[in-house]
Amino acid sequence: MEINSGDTTWLLVSSALVLMMTPALAFFYGGMVRKKNLLSTLNLSFIMIALISVQWLLYGYSLAFGHDIGGLLGGLDFAGFTGVAGTPSAYAPTVPHILFASFQMMFAIITPALITGAFVERVRFKTFLVFSLLWATLVYDPICHWVWGAGGILGRLGALDFAGGTVVHITAGFSALAFALAIGPRKGFGRVSIEPNNIPYSVLGAGLLWMGWFGFNGGSALAANGLAAHALFTTNTSAAAAGLIWMILSWIDGKPSVLGIVTGAVVGLVAITPGAGFVTPLGALIMGAVAAPISYYAIKFIKGRNLVDESLDVFACHGLGGLWGALATGLFATTSVNPNGRDGLFHGNPAQFLIQMASAALVLVVSFAMTYGLAKALHAVMGLRVSDSEELVGLDISEHAERAYA
Amino acid sequence: MEINSGDTTWLLVSSALVLMMTPALAFFYGGMVRKKNLLSTLNLSFIMIALISVQWLLYGYSLAFGHDIGGLLGGLDFAGFTGVAGTPSAYAPTVPHILFASFQMMFAIITPALITGAFVERVRFKTFLVFSLLWATLVYDPICHWVWGAGGILGRLGALDFAGGTVVHITAGFSALAFALAIGPRKGFGRVSIEPNNIPYSVLGAGLLWMGWFGFNGGSALAANGLAAHALFTTNTSAAAAGLIWMILSWIDGKPSVLGIVTGAVVGLVAITPGAGFVTPLGALIMGAVAAPISYYAIKFIKGRNLVDESLDVFACHGLGGLWGALATGLFATTSVNPNGRDGLFHGNPAQFLIQMASAALVLVVSFAMTYGLAKALHAVMGLRVSDSEELVGLDISEHAERAYA
Amino acid sequence: MEINSGDTTWLLVSSALVLMMTPALAFFYGGMVRKKNLLSTLNLSFIMIALISVQWLLYGYSLAFGHDIGGLLGGLDFAGFTGVAGTPSAYAPTVPHILFASFQMMFAIITPALITGAFVERVRFKTFLVFSLLWATLVYDPICHWVWGAGGILGRLGALDFAGGTVVHITAGFSALAFALAIGPRKGFGRVSIEPNNIPYSVLGAGLLWMGWFGFNGGSALAANGLAAHALFTTNTSAAAAGLIWMILSWIDGKPSVLGIVTGAVVGLVAITPGAGFVTPLGALIMGAVAAPISYYAIKFIKGRNLVDESLDVFACHGLGGLWGALATGLFATTSVNPNGRDGLFHGNPAQFLIQMASAALVLVVSFAMTYGLAKALHAVMGLRVSDSEELVGLDISEHAERAYA
Repeated sequence: MEINSGDTTWLLVSSALVLMMTPALAFFYGGMVRKKNLLSTLNLSFIMIALISVQWLLYGYSLAFGHDIGGLLGGLDFAGFTGVAGTPSAYAPTVPHILFASFQMMFAIITPALITGAFVERVRFKTFLVFSLLWATLVYDPICHWVWGAGGILGRLGALDFAGGTVVHITAGFSALAFALAIGPRKGFGRVSIEPNNIPYSVLGAGLLWMGWFGFNGGSALAANGLAAHALFTTNTSAAAAGLIWMILSWIDGKPSVLGIVTGAVVGLVAITPGAGFVTPLGALIMGAVAAPISYYAIKFIKGRNLVDESLDVFACHGLGGLWGALATGLFATTSVNPNGRDGLFHGNPAQFLIQMASAALVLVVSFAMTYGLAKALHAVMGLRVSDSEELVGLDISEHAERAYA
Repeated sequence: MEINSGDTTWLLVSSALVLMMTPALAFFYGGMVRKKNLLSTLNLSFIMIALISVQWLLYGYSLAFGHDIGGLLGGLDFAGFTGVAGTPSAYAPTVPHILFASFQMMFAIITPALITGAFVERVRFKTFLVFSLLWATLVYDPICHWVWGAGGILGRLGALDFAGGTVVHITAGFSALAFALAIGPRKGFGRVSIEPNNIPYSVLGAGLLWMGWFGFNGGSALAANGLAAHALFTTNTSAAAAGLIWMILSWIDGKPSVLGIVTGAVVGLVAITPGAGFVTPLGALIMGAVAAPISYYAIKFIKGRNLVDESLDVFACHGLGGLWGALATGLFATTSVNPNGRDGLFHGNPAQFLIQMASAALVLVVSFAMTYGLAKALHAVMGLRVSDSEELVGLDISEHAERAYA
Repeated sequence: MEINSGDTTWLLVSSALVLMMTPALAFFYGGMVRKKNLLSTLNLSFIMIALISVQWLLYGYSLAFGHDIGGLLGGLDFAGFTGVAGTPSAYAPTVPHILFASFQMMFAIITPALITGAFVERVRFKTFLVFSLLWATLVYDPICHWVWGAGGILGRLGALDFAGGTVVHITAGFSALAFALAIGPRKGFGRVSIEPNNIPYSVLGAGLLWMGWFGFNGGSALAANGLAAHALFTTNTSAAAAGLIWMILSWIDGKPSVLGIVTGAVVGLVAITPGAGFVTPLGALIMGAVAAPISYYAIKFIKGRNLVDESLDVFACHGLGGLWGALATGLFATTSVNPNGRDGLFHGNPAQFLIQMASAALVLVVSFAMTYGLAKALHAVMGLRVSDSEELVGLDISEHAERAYA
């Protein structure tokens, strides 16, 4: 195991790109809320960089990637980054161990940030901080271990998750649904129109997310090789297809929506995440094209009936997009793309589809249940949401004593 | 031909950087239109990522880089990315073929996005989509083949175009002029003042374009070597010189313009594009310094006489900047910088200047004529522009039923 | 000395990242001023890219890194980039010399841009241009030579400065204080409330700065190895710690401030800069955690007494943050992290702490004195600030005849 400078650079850059995705997400989300909650929404994402970085250093990385305990969790051997050195590890034999750990940290940061779209405009900041720390510890770290940690149960089962369709998007999406149900809707939800305050911010965020996703998925090859390049291309293809299809769907319902196009692109990015290094370019095209209507009509269904105020569609986009991606990887995966992967159902291996289903089902149930329990417990202990008058005045003033614009 | 991980990383990153240039361009342009057309303008660029990505996968790459047909076009052998694998190709012997194709895709995306500056605030979105698809197929792909495809006529002629001065900027700039003439001016053009709605967006876009251009020009070395580094430095130098000179020119006419400075920088980036890997740093300084007054006074001349409403100066900046760059490469190129290049007139080879002239002339005539024909044909079939009342209300509402800001 | 493609890619990318930090800084600062000075503030940073790039090419690089003259300055052997080729140099044996020079250029650009936070909203643009050119030549280039140039006095002394805590942040921070004292406060300072016009811009800027800093500090390893990865991780850790602590400090004083969180993160990035490749992750955690209260209470002290209108806290954040970082590197440095470094006081080498103190003291005194002298001289010759009525109307109109928003 010797360091390869090209692979190392690719993972350094990918770490930077995925780090950037969290501020990008802040703007993607920030554009969609009301102006009085803009800073609050930006901050819910941004503060995750600070909070989870420290958690990851102190014990998070170790829980996820430390020596396996029964397939369920890592031990504390890497706590405080003990033994996480500048030399390679078994996880990535050509890059420094501390770099693999840094790259993974960026995933651990953005996943709870993704959830914040479920409870913007009403969450109590203090409770949110406690929730996020507990969620990272009790939900993300174990599930990450199951899939990617040495000895984790889902990895041993043979579940395919190239870059986090299950670990990141199913966990975030179903946790978002659980939290949205626990916290309840925004005041006036379903009665008054809640308009995005700044769609250009969402376009900016989506553009940077698209770029960053090349590091997210491409970097998950853990080397600068044909597979990384393949993953970059399939990632782009799925995003493009989903963006185009979402445009058409919104056009059928009226006019082609710009917010819809960028949302569709993000859904395409989500959907390809588990399969980016396993499926062909044409497989990626189909995965993106199918992801768009799933999320589009899910939003329409949920919003049309006011079923739940999962405010920025995290469940519909990341939960269902991630679920579709995980299952579709079980359909489209082919060892002709990646000899270290497996064939999916369409390539003669129906068992893989069942493995993907089982794996996704386990993760979504655990994510939903744990998050719902956590949220309800925190609600009882310290309250999930601000007071009605604080919500009315907006969280920027009530939680931060600041306004976005003078 | 074996994959080099350093070269591969550089092209992975360059692909990400050039991808980002299209959202960056969206903001550069978006800042310059009126607020009622902001989302529309952002979207004209953004949607190109989605549309051209799919076109490129299905057949665009093959038309540009497939097996040569008479020097004019590539065949369909790479359609659907058949045979575009994770192993190297003759185009770039140390990086995966699919990565070379991805990098080139980003150029194919941004070129039609550049044109959009000519017809913002009045174009019909549906017609624009059809136009862009046809333009990519009938103009970009063939011309790209002529210059960079194996066997292409201009490459065989010996035309130097390091990173797309001809392929990208002359095509976009002269197509923009043709389209602007075909679609006609915005209502009130020349009579009412049309002010940029958000110059900070243009500064943001220019800053990100500057960064992205390091991938555009540096990545065009197709390897992480001294030439890539040289191209990065000449790129930066030309942009700096042009930005400074534009500042001075605007100062002479009144006050130093911030929008002018960032526009000048972009013009410097355009001008150096064909020569970045062929000219010395001091050559780049001159190329940028001369590009600024060319575009600056062209705008002044065109605007002063209301000759044509090429709204965001795509012709003046990219057409003339690219033309100057192509010609200047024929003056300043030196094999002391790049032994695989050629000497220019100032280094004892006047023939190269003639080749650059001929090559630029052919491309600008074809781009202009094809685009004018296409635009006129589409005008007859489906109409190029929205109705007067739709234009009055703004394209955000009339074409997308959305507003930038709540 | 042979080019390594992986190392070269890392430095190409790092150059792009650090280039981007200047537009990022523009937005970080731009968000904090009043709307009438937004364009002006953006431009003070942006124009540095253009101005210093040309200076660096013509003679700046040579003054900093040319053949040593008495330990104090480089000679003019590299003027016009003569001899700065695509082959390696002694400064970085595995990357092209022109790339090392490009990477260093980005540091030379951002340092005077950092200072601009001291005199926004009142500086005369023409004087600022002259000042910046002189400052780069008379302050930055020599001090850069002292620390990083071959034969420079502080490098020979054994001062540790991994990525510019002294060269960039102490110089900028103490120069900012000197300039703020020389130019005097904004009209109404201490009497009327001066509110940030756009905190989202500051969040955007901080997010991009955070990403860019991975190139700033990680790239300073000058190779893609374990040390670069280590620097990326310590950089992130310090920023995270300082952001969290700043949040808590502002919470103690009222509510958790979003502008405070992002400011804290930047202070953490500053503080770790000199030590990123010398201290452990836990050392970085402490360095960031301690940096936050130093800058936080310094601002409170200065603002509470209206001691000086160093408008955007450059002295408190970069001057004191950089000073703390330089000293703390003398405490926490350990050769277990970097065998080419030195041990600090906590690792048994108190001499290193004294060296850091002496080095920082020399640089801060010289920076302060030179800048104060320069500013006073320019004040006498051409005036440092605009007229009262120009200041009242705002610099966007009075200096640039433009408005940020239509």
